[in-house]
Amino acid sequence: MTRRRDIVLGAGALAAGAGVVGALTGSRGQKTAAAPSAEIGSPNINRGIKQFRMATSWPKDFPGLGIMPERFAKAVRDMSDGTLEVKVYAAGELVGALECFNATSTGAADMYHAAEYYWQGVSPGFNFFTAVPMGMTAVELMGWIDWGGGQEMWHELSARSNIIAFQAGNTGHQTGGWFKKKLTGLEDLRGLRMRMPGLGGRVLSELGATPVLLPGGEIYQALQSGSIDATEWVGPWNDLALGFFREAPNYYVPGFHEPGASLAVGVNLDRWARLTKSEQAIIRHACKSANDQSLGEYTIMNARALETLRDRYGIEPQLMPDDILRAVGQVSDQIVGDIAQSDPLVTKIFDSYLASRNQSARWTEISDGAFIRARTLSRG
Amino acid sequence: MTRRRDIVLGAGALAAGAGVVGALTGSRGQKTAAAPSAEIGSPNINRGIKQFRMATSWPKDFPGLGIMPERFAKAVRDMSDGTLEVKVYAAGELVGALECFNATSTGAADMYHAAEYYWQGVSPGFNFFTAVPMGMTAVELMGWIDWGGGQEMWHELSARSNIIAFQAGNTGHQTGGWFKKKLTGLEDLRGLRMRMPGLGGRVLSELGATPVLLPGGEIYQALQSGSIDATEWVGPWNDLALGFFREAPNYYVPGFHEPGASLAVGVNLDRWARLTKSEQAIIRHACKSANDQSLGEYTIMNARALETLRDRYGIEPQLMPDDILRAVGQVSDQIVGDIAQSDPLVTKIFDSYLASRNQSARWTEISDGAFIRARTLSRG
Repeated sequence: MTRRRDIVLGAGALAAGAGVVGALTGSRGQKTAAAPSAEIGSPNINRGIKQFRMATSWPKDFPGLGIMPERFAKAVRDMSDGTLEVKVYAAGELVGALECFNATSTGAADMYHAAEYYWQGVSPGFNFFTAVPMGMTAVELMGWIDWGGGQEMWHELSARSNIIAFQAGNTGHQTGGWFKKKLTGLEDLRGLRMRMPGLGGRVLSELGATPVLLPGGEIYQALQSGSIDATEWVGPWNDLALGFFREAPNYYVPGFHEPGASLAVGVNLDRWARLTKSEQAIIRHACKSANDQSLGEYTIMNARALETLRDRYGIEPQLMPDDILRAVGQVSDQIVGDIAQSDPLVTKIFDSYLASRNQSARWTEISDGAFIRARTLSRG
Repeated sequence: MTRRRDIVLGAGALAAGAGVVGALTGSRGQKTAAAPSAEIGSPNINRGIKQFRMATSWPKDFPGLGIMPERFAKAVRDMSDGTLEVKVYAAGELVGALECFNATSTGAADMYHAAEYYWQGVSPGFNFFTAVPMGMTAVELMGWIDWGGGQEMWHELSARSNIIAFQAGNTGHQTGGWFKKKLTGLEDLRGLRMRMPGLGGRVLSELGATPVLLPGGEIYQALQSGSIDATEWVGPWNDLALGFFREAPNYYVPGFHEPGASLAVGVNLDRWARLTKSEQAIIRHACKSANDQSLGEYTIMNARALETLRDRYGIEPQLMPDDILRAVGQVSDQIVGDIAQSDPLVTKIFDSYLASRNQSARWTEISDGAFIRARTLSRG
């Protein structure tokens, strides 16, 4: 517990306006003048080794998120027999947490591991490749991106910034959050100060609450001082480590804001174009492998942490009142639709996303949804 | 439709006792004397190319299942720059659908792509690496295998047969099936003749129904002739292609028998041991990539097929009555527990699986479960 909290607290202050999975992390600034690409002039060139500097949005070794890029780097190294070497930089080491995209775009970094909605300032279209309120679950999103046209539109969007990006991690469902007081209905949101960045925060705001932007390392203190009444973060695994349950023991589910938050590897497009086909294949499949591993990992680690929260701290998740969920659903589609009007490509992405969400929602409801209900029922 | 059905019908009769995802497929027999391994004496040896003969349990190009091994082979070829070459054989081409395991064990094949529960005759422990009734969902299983000790026990079990195996595909949730008559309650199962192989069939039998074993290509005719009253198969995507809705239009959800059926690549252990570390890494990550891609693919393809079933054929899924689901839950745990007593390793696998299932079930219920319910609610 303490160890993990220290890791986060140690990560320094966060840039404002950050995204959601994280908004955890990373001192801004330190626009370290990047060393020249290791391809040129590196002693390794004799061995034919290609090196890549990967900027990330995560504190070093942060459970889950911070490990994914390391796992990706190892897969690339192992598969290429060491000829492709990805050096992972924690947030703030090469550039700040939210500067990975710009750095990769210009070539100051070769790649990044981050959440695409951090770049919503570049285009709101990036939200659809991480998560949107009441949007797609992790596996639904995987379906749309790989088989529903999502990846092609993502390429089109990223290419504008000289980047190519792929799914390379998923936290699975993110929970509703920690509240000091019980929620009895929609009126309890009025005036509630809750830490929730991004589109989720806009939904809250529309319903009368006040969304607050805070980096991971500052949430606990804000709960303690009473400057916020509630917070969301990730899920039991990451949340337990930060100890929110001590200050805000009402744990509400589900989360509406991130039904399955996808992480991505982005690569500088010039650098990508100079790779051989097999090198590109190694990177693409290493992304898929990282995606696969993280989804299972978050599932079992969240399950374990949930048990610890119950057995050791007496925390039982509570269901959000139905009137809140209904209102959230209506407002979410409206807000997501609004951001989609920014340019024709984003509109195209939104239309495709929404159609796939609606189609998949019905299948998920009668497959996993009906099964989960049946299993609960049958286990009494 | 017709085209796909032909593919399956053309695959020939199925061996009895087959597993469940498929039990689709593959003429037995044709114990083709395998050609000597391409490593030795192949003209390709000069280019340093290693070849692998992969036996599979699927008809050639069968949607989903039959494509996964081809996709795996392409990933291996692309990443290795053509130095690793996997030649995929459809069921019956090299050996029969259910003989892949034996062939790989002896070296008559180098690898297989199949469902592990096809080898339940070798050990009932293999069931846990595909799916068991009221067991884990796809992502829960991924968590247990990769991060909960499952993979290590799987290695122990497979090594007895000179094989090492990994997850390399998942169909996601499989639906409850197609029934000629409506189900009003538990008593409707009494005397019902339903096509359902494996452990699911044993559960049905315990509840008074008569499970029937039939290969994919014979189900439609059996429904038509009235020799069976109901059938399960895979999900909307594969089921639509076989046209069951015409003969048995009552489509029930959820499926209790395979909450997320995992497919696997198994490799001859001697062959595996002679590979370099980077070659092993390429195979392992290609498996993960195939797993990741298939889960998304089945999700979106099932969603589309479900829409077609509704819009074109007026089929609306119905929920199984609660008393059936409750009874199924009780009997399932009992039957799965019974098979687990066969030897100490299987008991160890069962204990670990069950603990992880119970832990994950609670998390899934309040995460994806609560979200799916909320999304349905909010969409009216």
